Amino acid sequence: MSRTILIIGIGAGNPEHMTVQAINALNRADVLLIPTKGEEKAFLADMRRDICERYLTNPNTRIHDYAVPRRRADGNYGDGVDDWHHAIARIYEDLILEQSGPEETIGLLVWGDPMLYDSTIRIVEHVRGGGRVAFDLEVIPGITSIQALCASRKIALNRIGLPVEITTGRRLSQGWPEGADDVVVMLDGVEAFRSVADPEAEIHWGAYLGTPLEITVSGRLGDVAETISDMRGRARQEHGWIMDTYLIRRAPGHAGEGES
Amino acid sequence: MSRTILIIGIGAGNPEHMTVQAINALNRADVLLIPTKGEEKAFLADMRRDICERYLTNPNTRIHDYAVPRRRADGNYGDGVDDWHHAIARIYEDLILEQSGPEETIGLLVWGDPMLYDSTIRIVEHVRGGGRVAFDLEVIPGITSIQALCASRKIALNRIGLPVEITTGRRLSQGWPEGADDVVVMLDGVEAFRSVADPEAEIHWGAYLGTPLEITVSGRLGDVAETISDMRGRARQEHGWIMDTYLIRRAPGHAGEGES
Repeated sequence: MSRTILIIGIGAGNPEHMTVQAINALNRADVLLIPTKGEEKAFLADMRRDICERYLTNPNTRIHDYAVPRRRADGNYGDGVDDWHHAIARIYEDLILEQSGPEETIGLLVWGDPMLYDSTIRIVEHVRGGGRVAFDLEVIPGITSIQALCASRKIALNRIGLPVEITTGRRLSQGWPEGADDVVVMLDGVEAFRSVADPEAEIHWGAYLGTPLEITVSGRLGDVAETISDMRGRARQEHGWIMDTYLIRRAPGHAGEGES
Repeated sequence: MSRTILIIGIGAGNPEHMTVQAINALNRADVLLIPTKGEEKAFLADMRRDICERYLTNPNTRIHDYAVPRRRADGNYGDGVDDWHHAIARIYEDLILEQSGPEETIGLLVWGDPMLYDSTIRIVEHVRGGGRVAFDLEVIPGITSIQALCASRKIALNRIGLPVEITTGRRLSQGWPEGADDVVVMLDGVEAFRSVADPEAEIHWGAYLGTPLEITVSGRLGDVAETISDMRGRARQEHGWIMDTYLIRRAPGHAGEGES
């Protein structure tokens, strides 16, 4: 006798990113847990609710909002994240025990895809490790903001036969990654593209991808870096939050030297 | 007066990977062009037809199969690919002119996501460059085999705050990429995982991901490399073709030295 947890990727912001598999998973759930992260994410909570309104046809599915704790900004980065995940795991554990019966199915909705810069899978494994709740786990993939960016700009992520590195703004700000001339930045609170010294690099930038607020800019880094920085600042001020993603590529060969 | 071309990502093999956006795009098309690539891909052609049968509700949409030319195996890799793309672009140009009226919408179905190791966007831009056909272009993202792999294995692609490199088997066989300890291999005809010297590396491997034929193996590379190689050989012999993807990760720190 055990519960089932469904971690459901719901796409990057466009409700039409929902897959048939994700829609079916929504409707298999007895209870959907919807995280809320404070007022700056009200827009996202509304979009999650919109997705449920559009696609949830099971009249018996219950929806339960819960507050996500804020991550401590102090302390070591790794430890802080791990503490935060354990704190969320304890909340999940309590929620699951309170909100679901011992054979019920719980759906967790995740923006984008649970595999990419998201910790829901890790947190749920912490719950399993806690030993108070037994469950089977299923993961349903979803469209990521990288895919929404490339579709919107009508570009391929990779150049023919060349690699792509997916990384964070913090890492790009420490220098261009070795081994790839094509870099995707997923989490960037520091405008790391401004630290890239090569003005000839090409950047494809997007924020609020897939949503009605979507803005994108493509161009030579030397020409558009200031524009992006200005648009980013104004948009964040206007909406109270921003989520952006970009692909930045430099002339091939930097990473390819010595290769056949 | 111009045509519209929709490049539609249809997911990695599971018909339920189809997004609502992709389903709507199918039904907006006046004509769907379905590539056929010889007998080894008959299974894939059947799955594409299954997707059309499930989701195509527009009775006026026409379906047209066409043969994709085989890529020349001789000559320089880059030139060979470019020649091949131009050959396909000429086929598309003729097909579009023959099969669609000047204001019609043409749908091109692409496995996975058109952004990732797929050349449909590039080929369609060659058609545009040819100047004989004017069109608007839309790209619809789809679930990739990387996402199907991570969902099936219930794992995150990245470790917390760490980068991931997406690359080819040819490149991995030349040595572990600098700058990332987590590597995804998308196209591997050479079993490049066997060239990785670190038996402690962790591998998550899958073939025919998302389809009823799906097989996966996870484990310590030193323990499972032979198993994967055997399974891969037997599956390819049984089905006449194989498409596989894997994530391979080594202990963090190799790429992180000198970072804060």
